[in-house]
Amino acid sequence: MPNDDSATPVVWGTIDSMPSLKPISGVTMWPATGTNMMINFVRIEPGAEVPLHHHPHEQGGTVIEGTILMTIDGETREMRAGDVYIAPPHAVHGATAGPEGCLVVDIFSPPREDYRIPSR
Amino acid sequence: MPNDDSATPVVWGTIDSMPSLKPISGVTMWPATGTNMMINFVRIEPGAEVPLHHHPHEQGGTVIEGTILMTIDGETREMRAGDVYIAPPHAVHGATAGPEGCLVVDIFSPPREDYRIPSR
Repeated sequence: MPNDDSATPVVWGTIDSMPSLKPISGVTMWPATGTNMMINFVRIEPGAEVPLHHHPHEQGGTVIEGTILMTIDGETREMRAGDVYIAPPHAVHGATAGPEGCLVVDIFSPPREDYRIPSR
Repeated sequence: MPNDDSATPVVWGTIDSMPSLKPISGVTMWPATGTNMMINFVRIEPGAEVPLHHHPHEQGGTVIEGTILMTIDGETREMRAGDVYIAPPHAVHGATAGPEGCLVVDIFSPPREDYRIPSR
């Protein structure tokens, strides 16, 4: 039974060929965008920082490679593969990559329009 | 500035200590649930299969370890770390783990009530 909603195609992506953004020094992002969710690969260079910020989108994430110090609502935890977080809308959060850098996945719901790449 | 919505606490989880489900033989899940999203670690034993199915939730995912053959709307692709998919609501999809098994992350928006673990 094929999907009958032609407005929402299947998304298939691979980090090696997806368009990227560099919104912050030492931070590269490869976002994939659906209807309710954006799945964003984020590579952070060793010691680079995503400053504390907040937004109305719920944000969750996990770690693929390396470690990250994640701060949400004033609490900081070191995360690695097998760890997960979900930060509620408007929660103040930020992150600093560990000494080897990291590749993490951030999920936004709804998608962040400011990270949407026009070509997809 | 603390998050002022006490109904949606920050979620922190680690696969080693999260409650799990085994909905299908060879498939173990560790779901973390927010408001708009569920982030679900899924370990699939070598060659084990998630049969074709569909649901009204949008589903996305990526791979942490190993490989998975993912089928969405009749198209099958081999996925590994660095790959991502987003399947629209109602898309028919299923998966088979590669020869070494896999650990993947599935994201559902909205969360799947049938995977929600009452204790969290």
